[in-house]
Amino acid sequence: MTFDIRDPSALSAADRAHLIHPFLPAAAPGRVVMTEGRGCRLRDATGRTYLDATAGMWLCQIGHGRPEPARAAQDQMTRLEYSTNFWDFACDRTVELAARLADLAPPGIDHVFFTTGGSEGVEAALRMARYVHHRRGEPDRTWFLSRLGGYHGVGYGSGSVSGFPDFAEGFGPMLPHVHHLAAPYPYRSGAAGPAEVTDACVRELEAAVARIGPHRIAAMIGEPVMALGGMVAPPDDYWPRVTQVLRRHGILLILDEVVTAFGRLGDWFAGRRTGARADIIVTSKGLTSGYFPLGAVLTSGAVAEVLGRDTGFPVGHTYNGHPVGCAVALANLDIIESEKLLGAADTTGAYLADALRPLEQLDVVGEVRRTGLMLGIELVADKTDRRPLPHGTYSVADAVRTETGVLVRGGPHALTLAPPLIMTRDEADEAAEALHTVLARLTPDGELR
Amino acid sequence: MTFDIRDPSALSAADRAHLIHPFLPAAAPGRVVMTEGRGCRLRDATGRTYLDATAGMWLCQIGHGRPEPARAAQDQMTRLEYSTNFWDFACDRTVELAARLADLAPPGIDHVFFTTGGSEGVEAALRMARYVHHRRGEPDRTWFLSRLGGYHGVGYGSGSVSGFPDFAEGFGPMLPHVHHLAAPYPYRSGAAGPAEVTDACVRELEAAVARIGPHRIAAMIGEPVMALGGMVAPPDDYWPRVTQVLRRHGILLILDEVVTAFGRLGDWFAGRRTGARADIIVTSKGLTSGYFPLGAVLTSGAVAEVLGRDTGFPVGHTYNGHPVGCAVALANLDIIESEKLLGAADTTGAYLADALRPLEQLDVVGEVRRTGLMLGIELVADKTDRRPLPHGTYSVADAVRTETGVLVRGGPHALTLAPPLIMTRDEADEAAEALHTVLARLTPDGELR
Repeated sequence: MTFDIRDPSALSAADRAHLIHPFLPAAAPGRVVMTEGRGCRLRDATGRTYLDATAGMWLCQIGHGRPEPARAAQDQMTRLEYSTNFWDFACDRTVELAARLADLAPPGIDHVFFTTGGSEGVEAALRMARYVHHRRGEPDRTWFLSRLGGYHGVGYGSGSVSGFPDFAEGFGPMLPHVHHLAAPYPYRSGAAGPAEVTDACVRELEAAVARIGPHRIAAMIGEPVMALGGMVAPPDDYWPRVTQVLRRHGILLILDEVVTAFGRLGDWFAGRRTGARADIIVTSKGLTSGYFPLGAVLTSGAVAEVLGRDTGFPVGHTYNGHPVGCAVALANLDIIESEKLLGAADTTGAYLADALRPLEQLDVVGEVRRTGLMLGIELVADKTDRRPLPHGTYSVADAVRTETGVLVRGGPHALTLAPPLIMTRDEADEAAEALHTVLARLTPDGELR
Repeated sequence: MTFDIRDPSALSAADRAHLIHPFLPAAAPGRVVMTEGRGCRLRDATGRTYLDATAGMWLCQIGHGRPEPARAAQDQMTRLEYSTNFWDFACDRTVELAARLADLAPPGIDHVFFTTGGSEGVEAALRMARYVHHRRGEPDRTWFLSRLGGYHGVGYGSGSVSGFPDFAEGFGPMLPHVHHLAAPYPYRSGAAGPAEVTDACVRELEAAVARIGPHRIAAMIGEPVMALGGMVAPPDDYWPRVTQVLRRHGILLILDEVVTAFGRLGDWFAGRRTGARADIIVTSKGLTSGYFPLGAVLTSGAVAEVLGRDTGFPVGHTYNGHPVGCAVALANLDIIESEKLLGAADTTGAYLADALRPLEQLDVVGEVRRTGLMLGIELVADKTDRRPLPHGTYSVADAVRTETGVLVRGGPHALTLAPPLIMTRDEADEAAEALHTVLARLTPDGELR
């Protein structure tokens, strides 16, 4: 099949004939085929432009189409496009990035294992956790604790610890020895206040540990702030208290910082702000701003020591520590530093939240919440009993896009925004205005008037 | 930590302090830090050059450091560096590559689902297989058949179907419902000839199907030629007969063509030569020659039809169909086509095999075997009982590198070679000469005289 890729209808036809999209019914007639991006703007094949308030999939910290990472990629590809890091091989750029990440990481975290993304990183982190206990003489520590509404990826391991049961239907049996706890979700917990939310979560955690047996649990995994779950931040004392319980029982903490690391919450790593003390941190997205698929699993020295025993850690992906990915990541980190983008999570985040806050006057908006530059607009059919819209917020996100050209993301309960860190105030105003326009017409049955 | 990345000893020190390598004891003192690549040559930080007879990790079809994919990457990154393919979003380059792959694919295979690599591709393929049966009303079809010595990746799903039990130790419990069959390994099967090898494998397959129950098996997964297993090709009638058994019982065939596709066996896909008829084909490596982490899972129309029902296939990776990866893949396929590199598997492969064949005169060389441009040198402690070397061939590969600068790969039984498709005859001679030099001094206990 040959076709003119500048012809939008030929592109759509070829797409329908050959491309399997995640979460798309094959019968869907339309396609939005993107062709260009610059800053916070995207353009599709028909020439329509969009304001990207999602930063792609919450990853594009530095904005679209920037020349610096592109030059870094070209330079590295022509110098050394690939080199393995298996055994005693390495590549100069990979070592450089590992040392830089160790510098940026929270205290005690100083080793790096590279992957190509979040799902792979979580698979590796889960393996590390079981393996470390096994090598330390506790082979029965095989259970994982995670949370409902937590999202950790689509591999068989990462998908098993994810807390979206719908995503597992038709794929089982999943990985054994996974237990899901409730999410610390203040708006939906029914608790009187933050202290009660944490109390209930810690009680449930202690009970689960007692029931499974403390010496059978390898690790707990969680996002500092739940992203796909609806940009839900736990109460301030949640992570410190959870960390305490885990340490007492020798259970490792894996922080899934795929969304939160590299500026999304105003720091290189969110753990510093949330009080979580991780043994293993999984990162990806913001590491390259999406210009290249790269992930980094960061570990404590203690974890790394065990992984390095005997013949070493027997897990490795072909693209482990890809030289071009590392060069692109270094260019991306340079931009975040030189343009002081870490501050955007607080300044732009606060500005955007202020612009969205009046939405809480609407009957269908339960809550506008923000942590850093992660924003959630909880939509409800009824503000009193907090009943969600009957079919989630997906069609609302579609309507915002179709009517206003602003890209936000739908979900089961909330519309979410996580724009590039470079978003301007004018762009933030435009996004807020689009949401005011559409949500003002939203009815409790999820339809637009 | 800041250091001069041009200083080899500083690089090694930073590596030891911060980088977790796959399969490397932390105590290992040395590092080979690569800094440049061109054609079949690599150069390390100390200025030493190497002849790469492994094509990186068996992926670099077009040679190292080429400007064409580098330019394609830079152009695409500045035009549109990232765009999701979730829901109805797409990107022009992604659609273009999907259509091109559908053109190149074996008959009946016409849909593409993108990933970032082989492990992720296998995870997705396993999920597809169970999901398709589930949606067709056969939810009990959850078992996977695979082979001992088959390698499919390091995710929890892909690792579970891999047939290297050592790699699973300390990581379990693995994914349930996996059954491993024997490999079709003529040299090690003890069979009188190829017909007996296939007979035994088909008998075992039929028995396993009967025992597990034909209506409980989702799919069988296998490499057309086992790569990590030692570049082991099955007898010519193996895949046609296995395909027949699977079709009779409604069991899907997943071909893991991560190593074999895009020229390694003289065609775009190996299935055409081996007589295997797949429902799902997993590819990566040669798709971009390693310049970018990209994988493509190709499916039949029938599989794609089921995946596209209702709300669509609920699996997707952040970097699904990455625009830059697709642009790099298109540039790579252009080079393979315009330089007629598919032919190299037969011409260079035969030339290199001829140069290596005299090694069979040595007491420690059981067999020199070749399929396309995948070569294995089976090393034995005893030619009569075919006993392998006591500690595999890893230290032999290290010695070849240290003494001659030629990169080959070790394994449990065989040294393996899979050079770039652009390797010249002079370079093939150099690789063969290096192996003659070192193997002539190898003793049955695996030491070098």
